[in-house]
Parts: sequence; C-alpha cells; structure tokens
Amino acid sequence: MILSDKPGFATGLPVAGNGCFSRKNSAGRKTYFIILFMAQSSFIELCRKRVGNAHVISVPEKMASYVTDYRKRYAGKALAVVLPGNTREVADLVRLCKQYRVPVVPQGGNTGLVLGSVPDTSGKAVVLSLARMKRIREIDVKNNTMTVEAGCILDDVHSAALEADRMFPLSLASSGSCTIGGNLAANAGGTAVLRYGTARDLCLGLEVVMADGAVWDGLYKLRKNNTGYDLRDLFIGSEGTLGIITAAVLKLFPRPTTRQTAFVALSSPADALQLLAIAQKVADSSLTTFELMSGYSLELVVRHFPHLLPPLPLERPYYVLLELSGTEPEGQLGERFEKLLQYAIEEGVICDAALSQTVSQSRSMWALRENISAAQAKEGKNIKHDIAVPTSLFAEFIETTDRQLQQYFPGCRTVTFGHLGDGSLHYNVAAPKGVSDDAFLMRQDEVNRIVYDSVDRMQGAISAEHGLGALKHERNAEYKSDVEIRMMRKIREAFDPDNLMNPGKVLP
Amino acid sequence: MILSDKPGFATGLPVAGNGCFSRKNSAGRKTYFIILFMAQSSFIELCRKRVGNAHVISVPEKMASYVTDYRKRYAGKALAVVLPGNTREVADLVRLCKQYRVPVVPQGGNTGLVLGSVPDTSGKAVVLSLARMKRIREIDVKNNTMTVEAGCILDDVHSAALEADRMFPLSLASSGSCTIGGNLAANAGGTAVLRYGTARDLCLGLEVVMADGAVWDGLYKLRKNNTGYDLRDLFIGSEGTLGIITAAVLKLFPRPTTRQTAFVALSSPADALQLLAIAQKVADSSLTTFELMSGYSLELVVRHFPHLLPPLPLERPYYVLLELSGTEPEGQLGERFEKLLQYAIEEGVICDAALSQTVSQSRSMWALRENISAAQAKEGKNIKHDIAVPTSLFAEFIETTDRQLQQYFPGCRTVTFGHLGDGSLHYNVAAPKGVSDDAFLMRQDEVNRIVYDSVDRMQGAISAEHGLGALKHERNAEYKSDVEIRMMRKIREAFDPDNLMNPGKVLP
Repeated sequence: MILSDKPGFATGLPVAGNGCFSRKNSAGRKTYFIILFMAQSSFIELCRKRVGNAHVISVPEKMASYVTDYRKRYAGKALAVVLPGNTREVADLVRLCKQYRVPVVPQGGNTGLVLGSVPDTSGKAVVLSLARMKRIREIDVKNNTMTVEAGCILDDVHSAALEADRMFPLSLASSGSCTIGGNLAANAGGTAVLRYGTARDLCLGLEVVMADGAVWDGLYKLRKNNTGYDLRDLFIGSEGTLGIITAAVLKLFPRPTTRQTAFVALSSPADALQLLAIAQKVADSSLTTFELMSGYSLELVVRHFPHLLPPLPLERPYYVLLELSGTEPEGQLGERFEKLLQYAIEEGVICDAALSQTVSQSRSMWALRENISAAQAKEGKNIKHDIAVPTSLFAEFIETTDRQLQQYFPGCRTVTFGHLGDGSLHYNVAAPKGVSDDAFLMRQDEVNRIVYDSVDRMQGAISAEHGLGALKHERNAEYKSDVEIRMMRKIREAFDPDNLMNPGKVLP
Repeated sequence: MILSDKPGFATGLPVAGNGCFSRKNSAGRKTYFIILFMAQSSFIELCRKRVGNAHVISVPEKMASYVTDYRKRYAGKALAVVLPGNTREVADLVRLCKQYRVPVVPQGGNTGLVLGSVPDTSGKAVVLSLARMKRIREIDVKNNTMTVEAGCILDDVHSAALEADRMFPLSLASSGSCTIGGNLAANAGGTAVLRYGTARDLCLGLEVVMADGAVWDGLYKLRKNNTGYDLRDLFIGSEGTLGIITAAVLKLFPRPTTRQTAFVALSSPADALQLLAIAQKVADSSLTTFELMSGYSLELVVRHFPHLLPPLPLERPYYVLLELSGTEPEGQLGERFEKLLQYAIEEGVICDAALSQTVSQSRSMWALRENISAAQAKEGKNIKHDIAVPTSLFAEFIETTDRQLQQYFPGCRTVTFGHLGDGSLHYNVAAPKGVSDDAFLMRQDEVNRIVYDSVDRMQGAISAEHGLGALKHERNAEYKSDVEIRMMRKIREAFDPDNLMNPGKVLP
C-alpha cells in the first residue's frame, strides 16, 4: 500500500479517472488514500485477468525473493510481481502498466550484481518476471541456431545444445539460475569471452516487447543482415530500459572434442600479459580461457576450502589458468600446449606450470578459480569492482592502483582475479587487518574513487560485464562525456517517453 | 546552381537572413535566383575558410567522380565536394551545413553498390569526403588493436597490421580503394566473415561527428564494456545517416601461419550444406572461407578469362572453394583437410576435390572465385541480389527461386555464388538467350519481386552485406514490420532532427 499526499503521483494514475476526487476537495490525505487504494487494487485485478490469478503475487512475504538483490544487500518494494506465460501476456501487461503509469521492472533469474533487476523502495513498480517463459522454441542444427524464450535457465540452454551435438559457449558462475533474457539484457561475459565473445556476440535475433506494448519480431536467424539500424544490439545490454526481451536466437558452435587446462605460476601481471601474447600467437582461436588469479586470492581459496589442492605450491604472486580447446586430435593439441609452456619457461615468462592430463585434473584447476568469490565471502566483506582497461595497460593498472590504495588505506588487501584474456578484471578490496569490515565499507566511496579514477585514466570501463543497474549508473555518468550521455538519453526518450521501463537504471 | 521557385526550399536556407528578399516582392523567379546564388556562394566560401581553398571542389566536371556511383549507372549532383583534413574540420563543416540547412553526404572510397555514398540529383547536398583523413593513429600490439582514421584505404590497414605481425581480416574485392569508414558505415562483409565476422564484429570503438557537430569520442579499446547503450553498433551499418564516422578502433588477430585451399565439385546446394556441416565439425574455427559457385558462374569465368584454369573439369552443377587456416603446424592442418575431404567423398557428399599444395595453386583457385563478377560484367548486364537466408534453407531457396524465375522468364540465367558459410549469396539474374539485356532490365522490378518474396518467405534479408542506400530502402521498408520501421525512424529523428545526414538513404 502506498501512502502519499500527492494523488496521481504515487502510482502515476491520471486522477481524473478515479471517481470522487476533486481538486477543490479539502479532505487531504485520507481521500487520496482511498483513491490510491482503489486504483491499485483495480490495477492488480486487471493484471490477474491478463495472466491468471496464480501468476500475480501481491503478498509482501511472497514477493521478498523478487525484490531482494542477489547479494542480499538491498531490498526494494513492489506493487506486485506478475509472471506472464507468453509474449502476448507480456505485451498486455506492458500496455496495462502504460495505461496506469506503473513502472515495470523486468526480471530473469535475479542474479545481477548491480541492482538492475530489483525495484526501488517506493513500492510503485511491478516486477515482471519472465521465469515462466522457458520454452526452447526451435533448434536449427543446420543453421547452428537455437530460438529460446527469455526465461530459459542458462544451464538448460547448455544442455539442449549438447543434446543437439552443439555447444552454446556463454559460461557464467550463476548458470544454474540465471536466464538467457537476463544474460542478454546485461550483456553477460564470463570465462569464454576470449574465444566466443560476450552475450551480445552470441545472439542473432530478438523478440522484444516495446514500451508501448508493441511486439518487435526481430528473431532473425541470419549471420549477415544489413537491412537497417542495429536494433538488436541496442536492446542487448540496455538492462530492460528500452523494452523487454521475450525471446532470442542464439548462435551454436561445434562441440570441442579436445580440451586441456594449465595452471601456471608467474612473477607479475606483466609476465601474464607476455604469456597471453605467446599463447595467442601459438594457439590462436584454440585459446578459450585465460584467467589471472593473484596469489592472495588463491590463499583465500585454500584457507576456506582446504579440500581444494593447488597443482603447484602457492608461493608466487600471480597465477594463470589457461585452457585450449578445439576439434584437432587430442595428442596434437597437447603437444602444442606443452611446447607453448616450455617456450614460456625458457623465455623466463613463467616460473612453473602444471598441464592437466585428465578431465578430473582440469576440474580441480577450475575449482580453484571458481571458488575465489565464495572464499572471499567467507573471509569477510569487500568492495567489488568489475573493470576493463586495454590489455596493454593491465600491468600498469594493477601496479598503480595497488600503490594508491596502500597509500590511502595502508594494509588493505586486494583480491585481484579475472578474465585477463579479454581485458577485464575483478578487483576487490578488503579491509586492512585490524580494521572492521563495516568500518572499511563506510569508506567505499573513497575506495571506488581511487579505483575508478585509475580506470578512467587508462580509458577503461567501470563496468566490464556486470552492467550499471542502479548501483553504478551515477558514477558512470560522471566519467562519460556529455555527448555520450546525451545520446543515451535521446534513445531512451525515443523508446520510452513515459519513463516506465526499469526507471532509475542505467542512466541517473 | 539551383533553380527553384521556392526560395528557402532549394537550399533550405532561412530566407529571412538573405537580404533583399521580401514575401511581397512580385519579381518572381529571378529574385529568388539571385538570393540563392548569393546564399550558395557564401556557403561555399565559408566551406573554403573551414578546410582551405584546395579542399573544396565546386566545378561540376571535377565533382563527377564523387557524384557518380561505383557501377556507373547513376549520377547525382552536388553543391560542392569538401575534403576536411581532420575531425575538427568535419565538425565545423557539419555545423555549417546545419546552419545553412545543407544536406551532407559522407563518402569514403565511393565503392558502395546501393547508392549510399552519392547525392541525389537535386544538387542541394554537399559531398563530405573523408579521403584526406587516412592517418593510422596508433597500433597497440599488446592490446591487438589499431586506431585508424575513416579515410584509410582497406589495403593500407591490412599492410599496417602485417607490419606489426598481426592481421586485420576484413577481406573485400574493393580493398584497393574502399575505406574503413565506408566499410563500417555499410557493415561490410566479404570472404572471411565465417571465421572473423563482419566489419561490425571487427570494431571496438568509434569517433563520430554527430548531426549537431558535436564529436563523440567513443574510441574505446576494450573487448568488454558494459557502461551504457551500444552506440557503436548503432552507427555501424547506419550508412552515415546518424553521424559521420571519423575514426575507429579495429581488432587485430594473430597472423595465421598455415593456409590451405580446396576446390570441390558437388551435385547440389544441399550437398554443399552437408559439406559445410562436416567442415565445421572437423575444422571448427580453422574453417575461414566457404564459398559456393554455380557451374554456370565458373563457365563465364573461363569463357571471358581463358587463362584461368580450373583445377577440376567443369562438369558439375556446383563448386565450393573452402579454406582452412590457423597456427597449427602445416602438416597437421593439411592432414586434417585431407581427411575431411576424404570423408566427404566416401559419404557421397562431394564428387571430386583438389587441395592446394602451394600458394600459387591456392591463388589460382581464388582467382576463379574472384573473377565471377568481372566475367558476368563482360557477359552482359544482369539484375543483382545480395541476400541472406538461414543456412538451413539455402538449398530450398535456390531451388524454389530458380524454378519460379524459369516459370516467369523461361531461359533466364542465374549466376549464383557467394558466402554460403555465413549464410549469404549473390543471386544474379541475366536475360534469356535471344532477349536483349536492356529489354530484360526493364523487367527488373518483377525479377526483384520474385527473388525478394522468396527471401521474405524464408525470413531472410534482402541485403546481406551491401546495405540499403537509396537503392533498396523502399523495397526493404515493404518487407519490414511497422514496429521495426517505426523504431528506426525514432532513432533517426532523435539523432538528426533536421534530416540533413545523408537524407533519402536507409529509410524511404
């Protein structure tokens, strides 16, 4: 229930249509309260008519998981959560929301990290969950494409591709619960971007419900299509602010038949970049993963998950997990991989290396990488950054930012890891020993300022793969040029003149 | 010189600012003539001041090559051709054009095939050639990027990349004269799209002069960047209608060390698709080219270029040129290639195959593919189509469209060839024997209708890689949904409210 002394503002309802209210009426709040109550309940009733009673949630306790963010640090409020079952119902709901001026927050698996898929605390918005729309509409093996609804869980997309003897390469930690619609809305990244690109690069077509309720059938299954402006890429990464993605055509790839993983010890990020250059030259597109991990991140892993055993002693400042995969015969790939590592050792680029000989060895190496975030969480709170800079500047970025942070926060601990191969990094900062997490988190803005200023000096991005949502949009606008922000606003106004599509996200 | 009886319309000049003219004046045309003359000459003078006398061409004979299209079938007119030397000058000119309401036609190498880079016949527009802006601003080897100005010739980009021991893979027939700005504005394709993508996929950042003269510095050198709407991809493929690309950051790749080409004879497009599936499974990303050529296209080549010798007798209805390249050792790649072809022969998918053993053999195979267009031109005029359909439907497309054309134009000859691997095809139709080219060309609309209706039934695109320009924009709008055209219009209005950026292109 919304309380407000400004009728027509809280829900945005055109007050004239709501019966007894009159501008000259002096009854004040109480009158407005009744009017709003009636308007809201009639709106929710209409939602129920559109999608069925069972698919509208308006009891606060049952809405909790939909309005709370993935990291459980923020809880918003919603008028209701609605779960349409098909594209027509999504369109009906969007039209209804437009009529009643109710903001819409589209939601997939709600695994985002930037508050992009949760409503604000006003309680005015509807969460439109795509969770029921999880049909795989088509797999076209000859065309190497798959048409899926937005609510498909990423793991289910993977399985369906494998069943058709193909692969969908988007690879994320949250693949058991994130949805393909959310992945596209956020332009998700992950550990296979180096070879296969981000979510954007893996999508050929979209079906989108526009802010006016019109449905755009842009489900093109074409790898080449020069018949107008690139609307697809405008929606991808727009975090539901320009329209709601309801279905997508995804690219499929041949299943690699061979895969080998190496775990490598190094002295510095600069050496890691040299190794990357060697690996790219030798392995080209067979190089599918290149992940940097600081020694400290791995120390946390073995401290909190002692059953995970590193294949090399943890006595160096940096490590790299790299993977080669392809369709060439196993022995040939292994031979190339060995030569690559041998050359890097001879050149003094790496200190030591372990090359997986079995699938289980490869999995153990991956487990170290995959448990860094969990180990960090067990260690305590920290200030996270998901940043990108040109690969050529990574060593300099880490060195100068580490130094500046130590200057302002002596003893603070940075957990540095991520997708060095594609130029992005998770650069997380934890309190110095002896300083409480909460006291350190109070200074989050100062820490962010140091890190983001450093990113900006190197012409980087303060969000590499997580997006902006309601967490980074203000900071982002500070670093962007006016020209760029103005263009973004123009597009938004053109697509959503009423500002009802996920308002307060992406742009401040 | 423009003659018009509507002052302020021809050049769009705000008439009030032009001296002696008065609405009540009854002198008629002559007065307007003088006013326009003065306005035009002062506009051109201002252009000269902005970019220097030597860089403004206003003599019609000297403008000819700038206003005539690549295929020499169309000649427009221009007020002047201006050649700015840097981004600031481009911005100055765009502001000047806005002030005087002069339409701007941006131009690179003027090699486009859809009348996208030439002005209409009104003579009101200025051609803004980027030809002088051909500086390579930076090669960042460690980041695998290159920052170039829009006027760089594609061949020069290739050479600069090779000098840095890298490769820029965009591969087009016109690479000796087309420019990277034009390639991006049109989202060019070519013969390496299968492995490396279109121009869009090869670009990380842009510098763009907007319709209001503001300069957007979007020269990001990042492979991951989720800090807002994807403006880059909006400009790419927009054919200069949303802004003028002045510079770009391009992706570089490792130079393949091995490359082998095969020339294969087949019975049908369906078999070609089966071969594609086998090649993708066996060779994955090593498969860099997969070009279909009908037997008739190759007959034309050997008829008009008798020194070009096919490696197999031309007695089958279809042929495929496929290439594998990579960084694996030469012998290994060759062995894989042989196995692939052997398997395809055993399975009855292909009739015969020749595998290049030397660079010169590979070149001879390529020469057959590359001379199809030239041979066709020597044979006579034809009606060209650059289309895409889902790869899985290609055999059906060719079969049904061939049949329908034969029904309406018995004996007409189709020259079918192109990038089957990425799902696009050049499907050109020539007159039946005994019918003159010109008589057949009179029926171009009917031919187009049959071909494009067929494309539309298969959810294809009537432009795969050439764009829309002023040649296909009307036809395209007929096939697109209202929702899509409306979105495109909204974007255009938001970016160019005065409709001065390459007007009459892309959208009707």
